[in-house]
Amino acid sequence: MTSKKVIELFYDVVSPYSWLGFEIMCRYRNVWNIELKLRPAFLGGIMQGSGNKPPGLVPNKFMYMTKDLNRLAQYFDVPLQPPSDPFEAMFKKGTCSLSAMRFVAAVQEREKGGDKQVEQVSRELWRRIWSEDKDITEPASLSEAAKKAGLSDGEIKEVLQMSTSKEIKDKLKSTTQDALDIGAFGFPLVVCHVDGKPEMFFGSDRFELMAHCIGEKWLGPQPGKSAAKL
Amino acid sequence: MTSKKVIELFYDVVSPYSWLGFEIMCRYRNVWNIELKLRPAFLGGIMQGSGNKPPGLVPNKFMYMTKDLNRLAQYFDVPLQPPSDPFEAMFKKGTCSLSAMRFVAAVQEREKGGDKQVEQVSRELWRRIWSEDKDITEPASLSEAAKKAGLSDGEIKEVLQMSTSKEIKDKLKSTTQDALDIGAFGFPLVVCHVDGKPEMFFGSDRFELMAHCIGEKWLGPQPGKSAAKL
Repeated sequence: MTSKKVIELFYDVVSPYSWLGFEIMCRYRNVWNIELKLRPAFLGGIMQGSGNKPPGLVPNKFMYMTKDLNRLAQYFDVPLQPPSDPFEAMFKKGTCSLSAMRFVAAVQEREKGGDKQVEQVSRELWRRIWSEDKDITEPASLSEAAKKAGLSDGEIKEVLQMSTSKEIKDKLKSTTQDALDIGAFGFPLVVCHVDGKPEMFFGSDRFELMAHCIGEKWLGPQPGKSAAKL
Repeated sequence: MTSKKVIELFYDVVSPYSWLGFEIMCRYRNVWNIELKLRPAFLGGIMQGSGNKPPGLVPNKFMYMTKDLNRLAQYFDVPLQPPSDPFEAMFKKGTCSLSAMRFVAAVQEREKGGDKQVEQVSRELWRRIWSEDKDITEPASLSEAAKKAGLSDGEIKEVLQMSTSKEIKDKLKSTTQDALDIGAFGFPLVVCHVDGKPEMFFGSDRFELMAHCIGEKWLGPQPGKSAAKL
């Protein structure tokens, strides 16, 4: 048995394409011989640091993205539903995912080795903004998401406190800087470590190529279903 | 037997991702039950008309694209090799693909119903700019590409003359406008007509989703090879 390939996934819950990428990678962590490392980071910092602009500022691109997200969500079986005002969600709330991502970083710090809670809290935050059209900026919103993710009241209180600490602010900054240093200009960003070399994949549309690069097989967005059909 | 689904492919030979999309669609025209319509257009007009900016203006994005193109070209088995100065090829020559695309439009006009010559001339132009690092702006360059594509000297002379006529200029303008009206903001753009409704796909990374939408099967970028393996 060969050793597991390490794959890092950089994401921000404000990014709908990150949600798609996140669910695919979570599904494949048990299908491919990989060790998935979740790297919650801050997309706002990536855009600023790389000098990139949100794609939705071009009207035709924005309309396409809405359609594309709908189609992909259905095909990937992810309950993503663009909010009533996707522009506001992506750009105004976008600048406000900082507290949400600090919260996720705090969950990860508290969880130490594990990442079950990080996975679930991230998913619940995506569900709020990208499925239920709810806020993700207020502490009460973050608590609610964490509660749904299964954290106890005590744990939530602790995480909320941690999330405003210098330690956690620095942690999120440092993860974001790691992504920039690797060459990020947006999220999701998947970094596969193959034979000591990092192979970087941007977006949620390179999984087949990624599988090819790491010597695994792409079984479609729902590998469980495909495997059952084979 | 159900009637063939019409699929339009809008492209410009200055766009390397268009080359990848073009080769895939040309391979699948005989695998899927489709009628492929080649729609050579002018990317410069799309960028201007939609207000979009070339992706390579962000340094991290530009570096990623170079890497991404190399990996995809290998996986798709398309002899694409970024030229010595890809930035110049994409942006400076980019503004100069106008005469090349008028030339392609003229080939198509002359060919009437068929599109064998359009296919071959387009491929030879891509090969020049995106594989051999050669010019595509001078009449001599266009002639050379057409010669390699199998056109006779007489045909080439005729096409060169046609390509500066008002009729061909208007034809290219009108195809570009068609793409803008559908919602284009870049190339390649594939428009699948499914049950009378156009489904638009941007880029060279939605083939699996496209197959799903038109009720066909995605067999990877080299369907011949995959089919042989099955």
